[in-house]
Formats: sequence, C-alpha cells, structure tokens
Amino acid sequence: MRPVAIAGAGKTPFGAFPGEDVRSLSLTACRAALDDAGLGAESLEALYLGNFAAPGFTGQNHLAPLVASSLGAPGIPATRFEAACASSGSAFFHAWSAVASGMYDCVLVCGVEKMTSQTTARVAEILAGAGDLGGEVRAGATFPALFAMIARRHMYEFGTTREHLARVAVKNHAHGALNPEAHLRKTITVEQALAGRMVAEPLTLYDCSLVSDGAAALVLLPLERTRGGSKTPVRVRGVAQTSDYLALDRKSSITTFPAVAAAGRRAFAMAGVQAADLHVAELHDCFTIAEIVALEDLGLCPRGQGGPFSASGATALGGRIPVNPSGGLKSKGHPVGATGAAQLCELVAQLRGVAGARQVRDASLGLAQNLGGSGATCVVTVLEAA
Amino acid sequence: MRPVAIAGAGKTPFGAFPGEDVRSLSLTACRAALDDAGLGAESLEALYLGNFAAPGFTGQNHLAPLVASSLGAPGIPATRFEAACASSGSAFFHAWSAVASGMYDCVLVCGVEKMTSQTTARVAEILAGAGDLGGEVRAGATFPALFAMIARRHMYEFGTTREHLARVAVKNHAHGALNPEAHLRKTITVEQALAGRMVAEPLTLYDCSLVSDGAAALVLLPLERTRGGSKTPVRVRGVAQTSDYLALDRKSSITTFPAVAAAGRRAFAMAGVQAADLHVAELHDCFTIAEIVALEDLGLCPRGQGGPFSASGATALGGRIPVNPSGGLKSKGHPVGATGAAQLCELVAQLRGVAGARQVRDASLGLAQNLGGSGATCVVTVLEAA
Repeated sequence: MRPVAIAGAGKTPFGAFPGEDVRSLSLTACRAALDDAGLGAESLEALYLGNFAAPGFTGQNHLAPLVASSLGAPGIPATRFEAACASSGSAFFHAWSAVASGMYDCVLVCGVEKMTSQTTARVAEILAGAGDLGGEVRAGATFPALFAMIARRHMYEFGTTREHLARVAVKNHAHGALNPEAHLRKTITVEQALAGRMVAEPLTLYDCSLVSDGAAALVLLPLERTRGGSKTPVRVRGVAQTSDYLALDRKSSITTFPAVAAAGRRAFAMAGVQAADLHVAELHDCFTIAEIVALEDLGLCPRGQGGPFSASGATALGGRIPVNPSGGLKSKGHPVGATGAAQLCELVAQLRGVAGARQVRDASLGLAQNLGGSGATCVVTVLEAA
Repeated sequence: MRPVAIAGAGKTPFGAFPGEDVRSLSLTACRAALDDAGLGAESLEALYLGNFAAPGFTGQNHLAPLVASSLGAPGIPATRFEAACASSGSAFFHAWSAVASGMYDCVLVCGVEKMTSQTTARVAEILAGAGDLGGEVRAGATFPALFAMIARRHMYEFGTTREHLARVAVKNHAHGALNPEAHLRKTITVEQALAGRMVAEPLTLYDCSLVSDGAAALVLLPLERTRGGSKTPVRVRGVAQTSDYLALDRKSSITTFPAVAAAGRRAFAMAGVQAADLHVAELHDCFTIAEIVALEDLGLCPRGQGGPFSASGATALGGRIPVNPSGGLKSKGHPVGATGAAQLCELVAQLRGVAGARQVRDASLGLAQNLGGSGATCVVTVLEAA
C-alpha cells in the first residue's frame, strides 16, 4: 500500500437550498474539489459517491453515474456507497484503498444529501431506516429516542448532566458562528440550551443536529504525485471502517460504541500515532451525547469523563484538543451523506492553516470520526499536513 | 494485482416469498456461499452488499452491517453498493479489487432485493428512480417505455422483428424451465409471446423480466488459497465497471450502450481472451431487446445482427454460445440487487460442471454482463474454471 494524499477539497455551504437538487449540489462540490487540486474532470479514473437516501428524499437513485456524466467524466466506474450517516466516510475509505493499492492514480470522493424538501415527519421516517426495522424501529424508536436512551444511561452510569450536554452544544454553536459555510451561525448560552424544547428527554432541540442540504468532495492522489503543487498536500495517515449490530438492544453496553473504539484503534495503529498526539478532531455530533461518547471511545478522555472533559473547555478552540471547529453536525449542519466528506474538508482547511477565524493554531495532525446509525458503522480517518 | 478466485457460491431460489425479508434472504444466500467454500463467518474480513432499493421496497436502509452482524461477523467493514440493477455486479467489482490488491484474503459479496411486497405501480415508480428524474422520468418514461424506444429504433435501423424478440423470450423460458431455482419454470411458444399483453409497444409481457425476491452470494479468496480444496475454484480472469449518461436523450445512439462495449473490451483485455473464446454467457435480459443489444455490444455477433443471431438458435443450449442457461432475468427472475451476483453463481455452477439439466457441455470460460438502468452502469466479468 502506497501513501495517499488529499490533493483537493471543496464543498457547498450547508443549509436549506430550495433551488438545488442532489445533482447540482454534487456538481458544485466536485468542481470545487477539482479546482482546488488544479485538475479537470478528464483526470478522474473513478467516482466514489456517498449518499444515504436520495431515493427517499428526492426519488433519484443510481446517483453516481448521474454525477459522473454531468461532471464531464462519463465512462469511469461510478458507484454509490450507502452506510447511513457514514456513507461518504465509507466512500472515502474505499477510494483510499483503491489509490493505496495502485489501482487508480486519481479518484474523486463526493458526499451529498438533499433533505429539506421533505416534512420533518418524513425526514424522521427516512432516517429511521438506518435502524433495525425488525426491532427498535417497529417499537417506535426514532434516532432522537435512541440517543436519548444512550444519554440517560450515560447519566446513570457516570453522573453526566444535562449541563454537560448543553456545553457541547454551546461550544459547537460558538465554533459554527465562525464558519461562513455553517447552516446555523448563531451562538447560544447554556441557559438557552437547557430551556430548549424537549425532543426526547433528556435531549432538547439544542442537543440535536440539523436537517440540511449540502455536498462535499475530495480528490485523492498518490502522495508522490502531489509534490511540488501549490497547495499543501494532506496525507492520509490512517483510515478504518468497522461495523456492529444495528439495534441498541443487541449491545452489551449502550454507553460505548465498539465500532468507534475499533476504528480508532486501527486508524491510530496505521498512522503510528496516539490520541494524545492529535491537534484537532471532527467528531460525529449527531447528538451532543454522541460527541461525549466519541471522546471516550477514541481515548481523547477517560471512559465516563466525556461530560466533565467537555465542560472544562478542553474541546473548545484554544483548548487542549479542539473538537468540531467547523461547528460540527450541530451548527455546521448534517446533510447525512455529505457529513463524512465535509469533516475531511474541514481537516484539510485546518491542516493547511487556511481555516480563518476558526483556525486551530499549528494544527498538523487531525482526526475525523463518521458514525452510521446508533454505532453500526464507523469510519475513522487520521490526516496529516504532508 | 494477484489472481482472485470464487471459492464459494450460494443463492436462494428466486420468486415471491411473502415470509422472507431482505435480512433473511441475504442470510440464506450468505450461509450457502460460506458452506460451499467450507468457511465460517469468522473467516470474513469484509462484506460487499449490493442492493438497489431496500429502503424504498421495505423501509430498511443501512443493510450491510445488519447482514454482517446477523451472519455472525460484527465488526468487519460492511458496505452497501448501489448501482441500480448492477448493484451486486458493482459490489463484486469492488470486492475483487480489494482481494486482488492484497488488502483482504477473504471477503463476501451478497446481492439482495425484496420487491414483491409492493404494488406493481409502486415497483415501477421505485425502478424509475434509476433513470434521470430531471428529464425522461419527469416526462413519464418508465423502464419498459425506455426499452420499447430502444427496440423500436433497433427495428428501424436493422430490421429486427417482434419475432426476433419473442425468440429470446422463448429460449430463456426453455432454459429457466430446467432451473429448479427459477421464478417462472414454464416453456412458452413464439405464438404465445407475440400474443402477450402489450406493455409498451413493441414489448409484450413476455419481453419483460420478472419482479422477484431473492439473494445470491459469493466468497472471494486469493487463487492460491483455493488450491487443494474439494470444489473446483473459479478464477476471475477479467472484470470491469463502466458508466454513462442516465438519460437516453443524452446518447448519440440508443441501439448501442457504450458502457457495455467498454466494459467488455476492458474485461476481455484483462482476461486475454476474445468473445469467440467464450463457452457460456449470462447477459442482462431485463427486456428481450437488452439481450439482443448486449450480444452486439460484447461482440458475440455483428452490430445489428442480434435478432437473427438469436433466432438462429446460436444462443440456445446446444448452440454456438449458450446465453442465459439459468433462464436469465426473464425466467429465473430479477430481484434487482441480486441479479449480478446470481449471474456469477450460475457461471460458477456451469464452470464446475454441476448445472444439471441446463449444463453447457465442457464449459470452462464464461462471461456475465450486469446492466444498471438503460445503460448508465455496466459490469462485465470473465470467469474460468481454474
């Protein structure tokens, strides 16, 4: 396996865009990534498209050749990868392996989702398809309900409080307010978060990520082909995809995700680094409790200490390990299939030192963690300024 | 890239199975493939799951970790691949590349679809999602209508007749009647086919493939690991995936699919063989005209001659190049996401010489062609008894 680099990254802003569809969003992100890499579509040898539910949200399936041909690259292998909210993380993992193995020299990864054209009830129903329809979903559980159970159990086992959760939301909103491409650019207070409308006790509206439209894309090349370019190449130091049971009731503990811990261990081992070496992380905060559990599962803090660790300021910009400087899914937005690729776009900006007001100082090693469902898929990636 | 072999193949019968769901169908096929390879689920390093539209047909998304964990392999990378009717062909292509590159030593490919729980109208709507919603689908075209236009144009350009089409149906029904796992095991006559209810002129009911439930699976290993086993290993000699525009109106000709021709050229080049060397082929006869066009695009007969070539008996069992000894999508059935993997299961049986009443004598080199949409994705695979 040869070293692989991200040579270009690009994305759309995240938000509600009534005039855009999955094709137009994808094309904007793909063209931005190609421009960033200084390459044209004719250079591409394959397209890896991450998308969770375009057929459900928009009716359009078979999306990968639609995007490839519209982009000006008809003919190339163009494949859609679906792994719930980790769809574009999974697309990236497979794209990395194809370049690392020498099969291709230039591939494009794109993640996209168009969600805001549906009612909230229909969005919840489509998202629930990422859970086990034979059990928890049939029993009426939606994802806010599943993560509410995780939060309640975390509180019971470790003394985590609603204020701990609120502080994650406050921090990510503060970060997102610095990101011109974030969906919700407003700061909030702990009091506001605690007083938010209850969605699934103990999670209020402020504990939940957003329903957004958007796309993000990355160009992957062998590292040696990026030497001498105008942009700092970003090397893929480690990457791993893992899986687990869909249903929470099949897990021996719901306050830890084995798929996250395993993906973290494998990615760190491949990278030859440890959690303590990281300068920045983009974690999958679909709910505030998910960021807390991810901190623990990845070893960024001890088990059970994710709440106090977050409340200490360690994960804020300027803290020991800034988490979600982009604003995260909470504030930047969560167009499901785009999220994994967008996390990597943020790391590229951070590691190149071009993240503007939200720049983590001297960041040269970063991690992204992309979660599918309530822990049934995880992709962890470690990137380094090359 | 090292040589790769199919060490095990297994599938469910195809048909309408009200008591089965996507999980149970997948598990039956996966366990059969593992049993055939003499391996347990603990040997697996990754799952490549091809599925077109389980979320639309059944509500269940995020299918790959659901199948991996139910099979007894939680933890492994488990990914769903969607490429319309070529979904499991695409999953196979990516699985092959991962084993060929040395990334994994033992992976499972599975294709599945559960279609018969929906009304015919809803099935047509879900299938239309594989076309371009921005154009042809908005104009009201379903897939029978698109392939009817292709058939009509083929008639105009080359003199192809309705009887030519009917003879493809008659032949595939005759083959399928010999296949105990086929959905429709009945022979038909040319007169019956011509008198069938009109679906989209000139295509009658007998020109259209079936709406079916089913799953098929394959175990891939490096070729050298299959030496000395009890079953004849089947070597992957060549494989290629290609793409094209979704919409027919974007193509300069609708009587040829560039994606099929290109995938064929690449797969033949990788295999170091020519069309004339083949002993058996499974072609994607979603409609009778599709088999005729595939014969031409793959070079099994000259351009425009697919109709007379079929009517000559050359593609029947006992003919020069038997096509769809399984019965094809027309008679064996077409559970969309399972079709690519099922074609390969049929080739494995043929190349091992265990295909029973439908065995092609002395078959040692075979080809499968799996089409997505009206030619926007194609996967061609060349297999050989090793």
